[in-house]
Order: sequence, then structure tokens, then C-alpha cells
Amino acid sequence: MPQLGQRFQQTLASYQAYAAQQQFQRQPSTLYDPIRYAMGSKGKAVRPMLLLLGTSLGSFDLSKALPAAYAVELFHNFTLLHDDIMDEAPLRRGKPSVYKAFGIPSAILAGDAMLIHTYGYLLDSFEGETRNYLLGVFQKMAIGLCEGQQRDMDMEVSEVSTYDDYLEMIHGKTGVLITACLEMGAHIGGLSPKQCETIRKVGDLAGRAFQIQDDVLDTFSTSAVTGKSDYGDIVRGKQSAPFLHALGLANAAQKERLQKIYALSVEDRSALIPEVLSIMEELGVEKSLSVQVETASSEANLLVESLEVDREAKANLINFLDQLSVRRH
Amino acid sequence: MPQLGQRFQQTLASYQAYAAQQQFQRQPSTLYDPIRYAMGSKGKAVRPMLLLLGTSLGSFDLSKALPAAYAVELFHNFTLLHDDIMDEAPLRRGKPSVYKAFGIPSAILAGDAMLIHTYGYLLDSFEGETRNYLLGVFQKMAIGLCEGQQRDMDMEVSEVSTYDDYLEMIHGKTGVLITACLEMGAHIGGLSPKQCETIRKVGDLAGRAFQIQDDVLDTFSTSAVTGKSDYGDIVRGKQSAPFLHALGLANAAQKERLQKIYALSVEDRSALIPEVLSIMEELGVEKSLSVQVETASSEANLLVESLEVDREAKANLINFLDQLSVRRH
Repeated sequence: MPQLGQRFQQTLASYQAYAAQQQFQRQPSTLYDPIRYAMGSKGKAVRPMLLLLGTSLGSFDLSKALPAAYAVELFHNFTLLHDDIMDEAPLRRGKPSVYKAFGIPSAILAGDAMLIHTYGYLLDSFEGETRNYLLGVFQKMAIGLCEGQQRDMDMEVSEVSTYDDYLEMIHGKTGVLITACLEMGAHIGGLSPKQCETIRKVGDLAGRAFQIQDDVLDTFSTSAVTGKSDYGDIVRGKQSAPFLHALGLANAAQKERLQKIYALSVEDRSALIPEVLSIMEELGVEKSLSVQVETASSEANLLVESLEVDREAKANLINFLDQLSVRRH
Repeated sequence: MPQLGQRFQQTLASYQAYAAQQQFQRQPSTLYDPIRYAMGSKGKAVRPMLLLLGTSLGSFDLSKALPAAYAVELFHNFTLLHDDIMDEAPLRRGKPSVYKAFGIPSAILAGDAMLIHTYGYLLDSFEGETRNYLLGVFQKMAIGLCEGQQRDMDMEVSEVSTYDDYLEMIHGKTGVLITACLEMGAHIGGLSPKQCETIRKVGDLAGRAFQIQDDVLDTFSTSAVTGKSDYGDIVRGKQSAPFLHALGLANAAQKERLQKIYALSVEDRSALIPEVLSIMEELGVEKSLSVQVETASSEANLLVESLEVDREAKANLINFLDQLSVRRH
């Protein structure tokens, strides 16, 4: 796979420079310290980059898209912050999660403020038809994401989930944000409605690949790779892609055993993680899911290729999507 | 004090009819049930009524203001929902608070969705200059409210708060929302920028009266009046208006005793509530704060009177503000 080129690196550097300037120089610091902490990790800036790569498909001038790129990162980190409280997840990117570092009340409130400031970036930095379009896409995505997050929580206590339910849920939870980032970016870049429709399909496929891959990593990699607690999804008995796909592939005995283990208490199940992994290994779950990830990625790439826009911009987007969903093994 | 007239009752009825139609017919119900629960109590609809009474100062047609009135109620209930989690408050309006009824994760998420839907009402129901104005006022208020809420939480663990700090904090926490409701309504009603400025001053004064009165009720009334747990502010050792005002009036011995009691554990302090109330009684705290409430209310009323707009609309607003801040004894 080719390296991401100079123009990609320039885009990332522009984003990082813009993000570094957003210091939330407001009071009280007890509200803004948790926000700066949440926004402080130099991550891969996946969502801002998707937005900017969307813009680059139609325009060489990315500066006008930077506030929107920052807005989606702020929004994404707001969802992580609140999700970590809901999931009681102690770690995020290898650091204590915000509520562990600042307490639940300040974490809830900091998240609320991040969501409100997200709207601020969109309202203050755009105008006219572009503002309406961006707010329309953002609004639909944000509501969809809340609904997807609740469906995800519902699945944790439901006993009838299937892998298909899971795919629908992850579309709501991950696909909609990735899709919105690409579409907002593409619109700022001046792509046509028909091109934006193709971009939405790319987002759906990339979102699916990304979330399945995320679950695969949680189950088959360690905290050194994920920055999260080891085997968190198994510990919590989460109906993740590996678990649900394993159930679909399992024989009666394996299925009964997995369901029995997932009905245990957290402590009892934690002691049986090696057995869960061993059953998944027998069933070839990791390999099978990796094929699905690669299939969705390939379809997404073909759709990007089909757009009649700048070749280098397309190559950058395709490489970035590949890095996201395949190369993290 | 005169009864609120027929036109006021019609305004309230219009709002209630509009609110009853907002059923959030979306899935999953696990997300929208907590929202319907939070929005279900037939309260006094203080903030929607302030907004509609603001509109009525300039216009007889209130229908166009209804979505904004509902938006501010949705926003207010979002703040209550999250505040109850932060404060660990088990009751709200005499019912279990949302997180008690649905659990913390669903309550956090339902609050987030309410905030997002608030923006939806403003974005979908208004356009052009009105939409920009409403979003501008709302945005500033919403950020101010988060900052005010954090200042409120900071005061709970700070030892240097004064009654003046308190007044500044409540301006941020309560004044800004009341002010924003009035101003949004007045703008929809077509009031001039100068009239809107007067309305903002009315909001500041009414907000101060309202919050002091709220604290007075929490300390000197029972749950039958407040719908909250008895003496919640004292139990939690909150630096409320009565406590801080008592410190300002106290002699050295009384001050030392109050501070000692407020430094105790919740359990030990709960046993000493009668002593706290007795010291406040000696100092005339309730009476003195009531005078402050009445003074702020009177100033607000004079400002409303000074507006050259429909007399009945002014009378309705004045009566409503009086009911809010004085008659709840």
C-alpha cells in the first residue's frame, strides 16, 4: 500500500494547527480543563480528516472546512466522554477517561458544553445555504447517533440479538458519523448532490468496516494496541461483532457454552476469557470478520474511484480509509 | 394581586396543546421513554410562558413562537435531568428523577438527545434573520448556563464563597435562561432592539428573584411545596442564598457554629437541621431574603411598565413574574 503523500500530510498539519489554537480560553477552568483534557490527545483525527478529505475531492482550499473538521472532532469526543461514563470505561487512549480524572458531575457537564460548542463552530463559521446544509446533515447524524448508542446499550441486556441486528446497530452508531463527516466535507468542497450521494454510500461501507474492525481489535488485541482495557467487551459480556458472529457459526455445543459464559457475572466470565477466545479461534471468527472488513473497504474504494474528481484526492481518501479499517491488525 | 386574565389562560392552553403533540414518535423507545417522562409533568411551564409573554408584548399571534417555547422547555428539562445526576437528587417534582427511574446511562443519553432536539426545534421552525437571532441568543445562554452550573458545583467545595459570589453565580445559572426566554420571545414578537435591551434587564432581575426564592423555599418549606427532598440544600451542605446570607448577618459565634455544621458529614449535619434553622430564624434570614426578592421583582415590574406596548400584555407579564417570585411562600 502506498504511503500517504505530501498533500495528505499538509492537510493533517493544517488541521492540527487549527485544533491547537482552539484553547477554550473561557472560565471557569473547572469546566474547560476536562474539555482540554478530552481534546488533548493527538489521535489520528479520523473524523476531521474524513471531512477534510471529503472537501479535497472538490477543492484545493481546505481552510474554510477547518471549523467543521474541528466541530466533528469536538462532537466525537463529547460522545466518547459520555459513553465512557455510561460504559464505566476507566481508560481512553491509554489515559484515565475524563470522568475518572475529573469526576462524573464535571464530566457530564463538560460533555454538554462540548456538544453546545460544536453547534457554535457550525453556526459561527458558516452562513447561508452551506450553513443550512451542514446543520441539516449534522442534526440528523447527531440524533441518529443517540438512537444508535441506546440501541447498543439495549443489546447488552437483550438475549435475542443477531449479527444482523448488530450490523444495523453499528450503522446507527458509527456509520452515521463517518458518513456525515464525508458528506459535510464534500458539500463544503462543492461536490454535486449526486456525488454527495455516492459519498454517503462510501461512508456507510467505511463505517461498517471501521466498527467491525474496532470490535475485532477489542477482542483479539491487547491494550497496547487499543489504548483500552484488555478484552473489555468480553469482560462486560458485550454482544460485539466477534461474539454474535461466533454464535452464528457455532455448533449447538459451542453456542450453548458461549451463551452460558456470557450469562455469568463479570468476575466469573473474566476467568473464562481464554475459553471464549479458544472457541472463537476454532470457529475462525477473526479471519471471517477480517474478510468482511476487507470486502466493505473494497466496495467503498470502488465507489470513491468512480467519482470524476481529482485523482490524488481520491487516492488520499482511499488510502486513509484503508488505514482505518485494514491496517490496524 | 389580580388574577391572570383570559388571554393569559389562552396562551397557556395553546402552549399545552402544542406540547402535548410533541410525542417524539421515534425509536428506540428506551431512548424516548425517559424524554417523555421528563417532559410529562404538567408544571407551570415557566420558561415557555416567559417566552410567549415576551412575544405577546409585540404581537397577538403567538403560534409562530410555540416551537421556540417548546424548545426552551426541552432545554430546561435537559439541564434538570443532567443536574439531578450531578447532584444525586432522587426526586424531581415529587417523582423519582429520571436517572432514578431509568438508570444513569439512559438518563445521560436522553439528556443529550433532548439538547440535540432543542436545536432541531429552533433550526426547523425558523428561518432567516429570526433564526439567526434566536440561535445567537440561545447559544450564548446555553454556554453561559454550563459555565454557571460548574461555578455552582465549584461553590459547593469552596470555602471562600460570599453572598456576592452567590449572586453572580445565580445570574449565570438562572438569570441567563429566563433572560433568553424573554428576549427570544420579544424578538419573535417584533420588539425593537432597544425594547429587547429593556427586556434583558427584566430577565436579570426576575432571574435573581426567582433563584433566591427557590433557595428560600428549599430551606424554609417542605417537600409538599417544593416537590424535592426536605431541606436538600442543608443536607448537602450547599452554599445557598439562606446559608451565605446568614453568614453575612451572623455574629462571630453564630458564624463559627454554622461553618462547623457545614463542615460535618451529611449524616451529622442532617441531625442538626433544627439548629441551622434556628440560627437562621434568629438572624431573620427568610424575611431579609424575601425583601430582596420583592425589591428585584418591583424593579423588573417598573421596567416592564416602561415599555410602550400593549397594556394587557404588560399586565400579564408582570403578574406572571410576581407569581413566580413572590406568591410561592
